[in-house]
Amino acid sequence: MLLQVPGFVAGSASAGLKKGGNKDLGMIFSEVPACAAGVFTTNQVQAAPVLLDKKRIKSGRCQAIVANSGNANACTGKQGIEDAKAVARAAAAALKIPEEMVLVGSTGVIGQRLNISAIEAAVPKLADQLSPSGLYDVAQAIMTTDSFPKTASRQGSVGDKTFTVAAVAKGAGMIRPDLATMLCFICTDIGARPDLLGQALKDAVAGSFNTITVDGDTSTNDTVLLLANGLSGLNLQDAACATAFQEVLNDVLFTLALQIVRDGEGATKLVTIEVRGASSKADATRVAYAVANSLLVKTALFGEDANWGRIMAAVGRSGVPINLDRIDIYFDDVRVVKHGLGCGKEAEAAATKVLKADHFSMVVDLKLGSKSAMVHTCDLSTDYVRINADYRS
Amino acid sequence: MLLQVPGFVAGSASAGLKKGGNKDLGMIFSEVPACAAGVFTTNQVQAAPVLLDKKRIKSGRCQAIVANSGNANACTGKQGIEDAKAVARAAAAALKIPEEMVLVGSTGVIGQRLNISAIEAAVPKLADQLSPSGLYDVAQAIMTTDSFPKTASRQGSVGDKTFTVAAVAKGAGMIRPDLATMLCFICTDIGARPDLLGQALKDAVAGSFNTITVDGDTSTNDTVLLLANGLSGLNLQDAACATAFQEVLNDVLFTLALQIVRDGEGATKLVTIEVRGASSKADATRVAYAVANSLLVKTALFGEDANWGRIMAAVGRSGVPINLDRIDIYFDDVRVVKHGLGCGKEAEAAATKVLKADHFSMVVDLKLGSKSAMVHTCDLSTDYVRINADYRS
Repeated sequence: MLLQVPGFVAGSASAGLKKGGNKDLGMIFSEVPACAAGVFTTNQVQAAPVLLDKKRIKSGRCQAIVANSGNANACTGKQGIEDAKAVARAAAAALKIPEEMVLVGSTGVIGQRLNISAIEAAVPKLADQLSPSGLYDVAQAIMTTDSFPKTASRQGSVGDKTFTVAAVAKGAGMIRPDLATMLCFICTDIGARPDLLGQALKDAVAGSFNTITVDGDTSTNDTVLLLANGLSGLNLQDAACATAFQEVLNDVLFTLALQIVRDGEGATKLVTIEVRGASSKADATRVAYAVANSLLVKTALFGEDANWGRIMAAVGRSGVPINLDRIDIYFDDVRVVKHGLGCGKEAEAAATKVLKADHFSMVVDLKLGSKSAMVHTCDLSTDYVRINADYRS
Repeated sequence: MLLQVPGFVAGSASAGLKKGGNKDLGMIFSEVPACAAGVFTTNQVQAAPVLLDKKRIKSGRCQAIVANSGNANACTGKQGIEDAKAVARAAAAALKIPEEMVLVGSTGVIGQRLNISAIEAAVPKLADQLSPSGLYDVAQAIMTTDSFPKTASRQGSVGDKTFTVAAVAKGAGMIRPDLATMLCFICTDIGARPDLLGQALKDAVAGSFNTITVDGDTSTNDTVLLLANGLSGLNLQDAACATAFQEVLNDVLFTLALQIVRDGEGATKLVTIEVRGASSKADATRVAYAVANSLLVKTALFGEDANWGRIMAAVGRSGVPINLDRIDIYFDDVRVVKHGLGCGKEAEAAATKVLKADHFSMVVDLKLGSKSAMVHTCDLSTDYVRINADYRS
């Protein structure tokens, strides 16, 4: 059940960008101008909507978001920027707000021009049909290879006042840290200054979207946008409110991040990789990603094979100095490696049982220091290959 | 047809380490003590045979190699080292040479103790049956997930004298640069000083095994050994001889490297990725590997989809500064991207035809400088996942 956020309406439409007439256009509108913050892909190849949003969000203000699936509007040059602006312009006209108050998002195939006339034709009707319960429809409209819409919401309170955070996301493959996820739009009725809102978003992304990896690839379009309309009467400038908001925002984004990994293309398992005992947080993170992105580890997970030798090999090539004779490895609480050596058949049999679950942990204890890191990933299945081999056909 | 190298005999046996009674033990013997050089994995987790060989090869001399498949003797601690020594000792006794003149190699499952008594039982008979035409059998004995034995040989001449280089290799998955391949043993009748032989090997590996990648993973066991017995009467200290030998050695190792990529687990295509117009060789290499190791690129290759957007995304996240508006991308000689923009449907249709071949090139021209790099890889198929999910079962 996705909570409604006071002052926000949303909805979706089929503009004909996707095959089969599925929903492919979503719109979110704040009835009053909202404070806005964003986090974007770090890929040097950035899609037109990313380039446009990064410019517009500098004002710290936004009132509407329009997003399409079926076409990424990436590698489309100057024409792509004009097209992104045209989408925003159409929405602004329909919603009767300034063009600069509209942000856009796109996801789908790279390198093809957006069908602007189809979007322009669909926007006015879509703008007319927005409703307080329409956010779920936006989650559906931005799906590409996703197998389910991703939503999360939670309330918090400070004194006798309540605030709400509700968010939608899309993302299945091409998910990796330092770029949030493919698309995520968050609505809240907290009040905020842009700088405080931006910092809160950055912190929440660091603990959520930046701790997941599906295939190690990164997208041209990744965008996280947060709109805060202030209608709750609470404001981030109040310390108690800031604390409460951060906790709720972290929780909402972390919930979405796990949904994204669980829906990793073809994934059958959600696996949390924890690296402990590192000399630094950076080392722990580097080892965790080396394990999480190893094809050999990921295929062994799919095969439900407690093949810890592949984990060892990934740790050994991570580039982080290790002491092999100290390393312990666990699947949940089953230790399979102690001081760098296997714990034997019995331990492996117990670990194999752990691997049959659809969510479990792999723990690597380096015993070199006190720092740790956690990364969430999924297995690599034959379906991943099938989905990605056939994506455009 | 694998050429015989004067003074070398070889052979294989079934020691019972592999399921189904397949050959799993290979031996190479130089009738006279040979000059020796090696290149080993850069993974910090190094198997016992690697640790032993690295120590022994410092002498620059070796007379025999024993290698087994079915078990990597990795993550086996001190016991593993003792076991590797025991294998060498058994071979030395059977061949009546000093223990220190034997090098060993292992490939297979990590973390299980080698069945030493089985190997000790098989070695004497194997040593008795070595023959000048036995090198091909060694190629078979070291196979794991390989679908065909990998061999290459060539002769060269200086004046009226001829020398021969013959080599065997194994490797299907877990192949990536900076660690040569899984196992490769090279025999030659050139004469050499260890330092010159080591440099020649290093140079040949740089242009062959260090330019290929199958899944970006790296092994605990990768070993390349080169034995040079001097029986040709030619010596590397002669400049003409050094030049001729380097050319032949480069060719033999490059041939093996391409065989390894072509046999990448589940691979259906051999793809050469060339990055041109980079500011430095390091930049070109980095971009080439980002493309070569992208799961999205590799699955698109399997799907025969000229999805250049994924190549662009990989280039963009490589960490190398680019200018998007300058980039051209080709499949063989079909340009699909010009100045960062797609060349349209017709070009893509032509590129799709290129993708149907079992060997083709993808060229990325960054137009920032004059440096280039070439990397050889394969596609990622559903069979890759199947092979690696089921490897131990």
